[in-house]
This record gives sequence, structure tokens and C-alpha cells, in this order.
Amino acid sequence: MALVVTKFGGTSVGTTERIRAVAERLVARKLAGDDVVAVVSAMGHVTDELVDLANKVCDDPPEREMDMLLSTGEQVSIALLAMAIHALGFDAVSFTGPQVGIVTDAVHSKAKITEVRADRVKQALAEGRIVIVAGFQGITPDGQITTLGRGGSDTTAVAVAAGLGADVCEIYTDVDGVYTADPRLVPTARKIDVISYEEMLEMAASGAGVLQMRSVEFARNHGVVIHCRSSFSDQPGTIVKEADDSMEQAIISGVTHDTSEAKLTIRDVPDHPGVAATVFGRLADANVNVDMIIQNVSEDGTTDISFTTPGTDLARAKRVIAEVVEELGAREWLVDENIAKVSLVGAGMRTHPGIAARMFAALAQAGVNLDLISTSPIRISCVIASGQVEQAVAALHTAFGLDDESVLAETSPACGEGV
Amino acid sequence: MALVVTKFGGTSVGTTERIRAVAERLVARKLAGDDVVAVVSAMGHVTDELVDLANKVCDDPPEREMDMLLSTGEQVSIALLAMAIHALGFDAVSFTGPQVGIVTDAVHSKAKITEVRADRVKQALAEGRIVIVAGFQGITPDGQITTLGRGGSDTTAVAVAAGLGADVCEIYTDVDGVYTADPRLVPTARKIDVISYEEMLEMAASGAGVLQMRSVEFARNHGVVIHCRSSFSDQPGTIVKEADDSMEQAIISGVTHDTSEAKLTIRDVPDHPGVAATVFGRLADANVNVDMIIQNVSEDGTTDISFTTPGTDLARAKRVIAEVVEELGAREWLVDENIAKVSLVGAGMRTHPGIAARMFAALAQAGVNLDLISTSPIRISCVIASGQVEQAVAALHTAFGLDDESVLAETSPACGEGV
Repeated sequence: MALVVTKFGGTSVGTTERIRAVAERLVARKLAGDDVVAVVSAMGHVTDELVDLANKVCDDPPEREMDMLLSTGEQVSIALLAMAIHALGFDAVSFTGPQVGIVTDAVHSKAKITEVRADRVKQALAEGRIVIVAGFQGITPDGQITTLGRGGSDTTAVAVAAGLGADVCEIYTDVDGVYTADPRLVPTARKIDVISYEEMLEMAASGAGVLQMRSVEFARNHGVVIHCRSSFSDQPGTIVKEADDSMEQAIISGVTHDTSEAKLTIRDVPDHPGVAATVFGRLADANVNVDMIIQNVSEDGTTDISFTTPGTDLARAKRVIAEVVEELGAREWLVDENIAKVSLVGAGMRTHPGIAARMFAALAQAGVNLDLISTSPIRISCVIASGQVEQAVAALHTAFGLDDESVLAETSPACGEGV
Repeated sequence: MALVVTKFGGTSVGTTERIRAVAERLVARKLAGDDVVAVVSAMGHVTDELVDLANKVCDDPPEREMDMLLSTGEQVSIALLAMAIHALGFDAVSFTGPQVGIVTDAVHSKAKITEVRADRVKQALAEGRIVIVAGFQGITPDGQITTLGRGGSDTTAVAVAAGLGADVCEIYTDVDGVYTADPRLVPTARKIDVISYEEMLEMAASGAGVLQMRSVEFARNHGVVIHCRSSFSDQPGTIVKEADDSMEQAIISGVTHDTSEAKLTIRDVPDHPGVAATVFGRLADANVNVDMIIQNVSEDGTTDISFTTPGTDLARAKRVIAEVVEELGAREWLVDENIAKVSLVGAGMRTHPGIAARMFAALAQAGVNLDLISTSPIRISCVIASGQVEQAVAALHTAFGLDDESVLAETSPACGEGV
């Protein structure tokens, strides 16, 4: 008998038929002898409808009231799912985030979970009931309703699993696991059976959309094992957990890509202390997220600074940079929206030198020009032209033997230089 | 400066346009110097849509989960109304029933308010904000979400007004007050300016649909003055309060009617102690509401028992009576669904004898036959054929001088016999 926390996203509970299917899945789990907690999102279309309503009454709705509004979406889902379980003759009880004791900070629309008081869930489980918990929402210590922002329901599921000491947190989604590359781009991409938190974080940060970084971070910090799997099949998906010896020892876990960013470059900025601090301080003040930052070596007392930012932040970033360029006396600034970031992720990089060189060689052979490069101990990212993303990902996938399941670390050729 | 609690029903907040109109009304009130609390229902269509969803996943949804589901309706309204007020440049804050501290018993779907902890509302008012409260919902001491059943939002408004010691509880509705008769039946019906709790209760109980009995009872028990008025005009409506000398001293306040009931009769039931207790005990066990009960004097050791019950309870009532008739050895039972109840309500009945005789005479003159009669100190009700309800109400309205505003107690003729 295991204690299982399962999470179903908006697509999985998008219609009453799908809610009934989820109910059947949970009941089957209960019948198999497990204690079952389900965390659910709002029905697929509901959040958009609520946002539309808000826009009809207010151009710039206060975030506190948006949280009040949007949190009803999950409340509808949990009630319907509990009812659907009752219709199958089983006992279920639903709890909102506030009821379950998902305590958060007071940053409305992107609150962070600070505590999970799982007593009510534990008691309901002890009474033999299937417990349904609203994802995406919480309550501040002084009783304000909050929402957790993008990917919040995954984080709720992991946090509840941590609070209960669950054996596993299963995240059901519309794909059947984490892949070595996006299967839409690379038909030979294969599902990864087990991956470490660390690699999963790098993959999520560099474009793999299956799991949200926040939930993986939360899982790593609390030692929660995540099983990422499909709502539409019973096949096992991808297990995310602490690295250990039992894991498949691939040098490279996967190739990810991200076409949602834009690149800004400030040319010939005077190279004296505090310049970078000014640029990125001002961007932070304007709430602009910055991903890669590259500053080239100085020449003639000036340098170039480039960075990438999500497309959603681009308009704000441009406003800030236009001001900053003038203040700093830089020559000009440029923006390029037609970029893509291609990344290679693998814990094996630490012990297998030369991966970067092989990566650059493979890209060169495929005729892909590199614009920016940045690295972490287990990731190498290159910015390229967005039109070349498909050939770049496919070339890397092949070059690092990911097309073929038999190519594992022990059989792959070791190379020369370090990264 | 007054402290005003206002309540807007589902029609008044049925669309985003109407929500904006309510926001303007509240802001005007705030600008006039009042402290403003608004209690709102779910948008008109929302509750039905939620019930439809529930029926698609479960034939007989648990009431706890229905409360979880339905309470989202008001939560959407309060968030949107708070946003609409922000759009006008004013500060508003919304609270759910649980947040505001509407504590109820645990009878899901028809919970009763046991306590209102209005501290959060008081604090928000002290900060100069317009406060929006979700009607119809509350929370049990152990944290379950409940709903208050039919007319629940009115009761929330009165309870919040009581908790705050508000000067008045304004209930906005789609009619502009309480009338001496239903204006759809009696074109000469006139709006009542002031009415006592006691008369209002009798009118509500006998068919006047404007205010729910529960909210009037709550108002009487806590001395809350209700102002029942139209969402679509600024004209004053009807004030409901403790009877005092300032009130218009009409003998009769109004004529009400109710066509939603059915009559059951048990014929020739042995007349020994405990028979009525058996009949009505069994009906209560089956959750059948009973309105009028008439037992005629015994003849030959048997008697007839008649009672009326809402049409919604008729199927259950018939099942119970079929069993009871057999057990008690009564001759037969009859059901009549084509009935109407016509009532005359007025505190003046206590001091003006002969009202009943005048009522019966007026109905006889209009050719209306009486089936059952029952009375309270300030009400006389007659059951008649449903096809005659219009002529009966009109005849009584005229006979008691309600057509003409100048006919008040001091000018009306005193009559002979008591009721």
C-alpha cells in the first residue's frame, strides 16, 4: 500500500467526461490498495473565461481580486471530481487550497508556498476517503486567497506530497514523459525513464515544457519523487528523483530548445565598474526577466553586452534599454527577435570533457551559426537563428547518440578538451 | 454619514454591464459620505450552469460538494464587483462568506447562520474601502463551506447588517417595494411605504415573494431595519421595521396569494388521540413541508383532516399519506392540485373585529367559494379554486379600501363580529 499524490491539469479535467475518466482512474488506484490524494487544476477553458469577464469590468484588475476570481476555477473542478467519485460509489472529499492549509506569502498572482498544514488531508485519508485538493491556490497567514502563478498546480501537488510524506507525486499531463528532445521536432526522440532533479531543472529552464521549474525545485528541496506520466495511458512515464547509482548513465540526457526569447545587445558601452549592475538593476526594477547574459572582453575601453529575455517582457526591456543606452553613453542598441536557444543537458558533462567542442562541431557540420554561448556545469546553451532550430536539435540529438537507446555512457567515445 | 449594507440579487449582477451599474451606485453612495457594504448573489445564470455540470457527473451529488461548487458563483460576483469599483478609481475589497466570518451550522445546502464575526469588514471600512461580501455562503466552525439555501443572500445581508450595527439593510430587487397586492393581478395595487416585521412575515409566508421569511425573521430578531427597493430606480421602496406609532395605521396591509400549493384530504379517519400526531409526524419524517392544517369536528367517531403542501413536496406527501391511510383505517384520501390560497394580512385585525366576516362577504359577492379557512392573529387565509384567484384578490383589495391611498384606519368603518 502506497500513499500517492496525483495531479491532473486543465486538459485532463477539461470536460465532465474527462472528469469522470479521472474519477475512474482514482477509484482503480484506491481499489488497488493505495491511499489517494488528487490535486486538480481548473477545467481547461474556465480560466480564460474568467479572465475575459475581468477584462470586461476593469482594464487593470487588482491582483488580489484576480486571485479571488481565478481561484473559483479549481474549486469547481474539485467539487465535480468529488461528485464523480461519489457516483462510482466511493467516498471522496474536496478541499480548497485554504482549507487544506496551503499557506503562502502575500504576493498575489504568483505567491510562494511557505507551509503545508496537511492535517485535514491526513484525517480524511485515515477515514478511507479519496481526497481532492484544489491546485494553484493558497491562503496567506492573514486569510487572503492567493494563486501560485504559472505551473502552480504542479507545485501544489509536490507541496502536498511533501507535507504528507507521500511515496510518489504523479503528475499527469498530455504527454507521456520527459523526452530526449521535443518529439515534434525529432521523431527519434525517446522517453527518459529516470532523470535527476538537477538535469530536469536544467531541461525545464532551457525549454522542456513538461514540468515547471518551481515544482521540480520544490521536489528537490523536499526529496519528493515525481512521476511525470500521461493522462491517456497506463504506461509508466519519467521518474524525477535524486541522482543515484541506479540511474541510466547517459552523458547527455536531452536536447532542449526555446524559441520564445529575444536578444538585446548594447554596443560600445564604456567599460567601467558598475555598468552591468546599472543595466541589469534597471531591468530588474522594471520586472524584466533576463535569461542569458554575455559580455565580451573589452576593446578600446568599450564593450558589448548582450542578453536574452522572454518575448513577453520584450516591450518593457526595450523601454529600459533605450533609456540606459543614453545614460551610459553607449553607441547604440539592437534587438533580434528571430533567435532560438538550443541546449544540451547532462550530468555526465562534469566527468566527460569535450562535450562543448563536440556540440559546436556538430552544429557547424549542420551549417548552424552560433551567436551567443553560455554554460552551466551540466548544460551548454547556444543562441542561433530561429529558422535553424529544427536542424540544430536533430543534429545534436544524433551526434550525442540519443537516437539509439543502446548508446549509453560506457560505450560513447571520450573526447579531448574540457568545456 | 450612515453605515449602509446593500444587497444585490442575481438579476442585478446578471451581466458585466449590470455589475458596472452596481459599482456606480455604490461609488455614488460612498461619495455621499456613507460607509458602504455590498452583499451580492451569483450572476443570474451561473448557479443553473453549475447545477447542470453537477448533474453531468453525478445523479445525486453530495450536498457538501454541491455547496463547494455553488459557492463559487458568489465568489465570481464579488471579485468582478470589486474590480468594477477599482475601474472607477475607488478602493474596494471582496470577502467570501468564510473570510467575513459568516459562521453557520453544518446543514449543507440550507445552513443557518449562528454567528457573524465582522472584524475584517469593520477594519476595511475603517480604511475607507467599499466592502463586497459574498451572499448565500458561510463556514462551519470546523471549516466546511456551506450555503444558506433559498433567499440566503438576503439573510447574509441582514446578518452582516446586524453584526456591524448598520443603520439600514437595503435589499435591491427587480420590484420597487412591497405592494398591497401583486400588481400583475391588481393594477390598482399600491406600494407600502412602511410595514412591521410581523406583517411582512405574514405576507411573505402567504405568498408575497419580495422578501424571504428567513431574512425578515433574522431582521426582527436583531432589530435590523430593511429597505426593500428597486435596482433600476432611485425611488424609495418599502421600509420593514418594528411597529411604532409613526406607521400608517391601515387595518389591512395587503392581500397575498399563493398558487404553488396542493391540498390533501384524509376522509373518515377514526378520531382518537394521536391520529394527527401520526399523520404529521410521518410527513415531517419524509421532509414534507405542511402549510395549513384543518381538522373538522368529529362526527360518528370519525373526522376529516386536510392540509396544504408546496407542489414541490407533493410526490413525497402522496407516498406518505397512502401508507398512513391504510395504517389508520381511514376511508380514503383525495388530492387537489387546482387550489389557491388568498390571504388578508394586517396588524389592525387585532383591534378591529369583524374583518373575517367582511372578507367572507366580499368573496361571496365575487362568486368565490371557500374551501378551507385558517387564521393567525393578523392574517386570514382562504383556500379557493385556483381559477378564481384573480377575482378573489381584486375583490378583497377593493373591499378593504386598498385601491385608494386615502382610505386609512381612522376613516374605515368598524364592523361587528370578531374573526
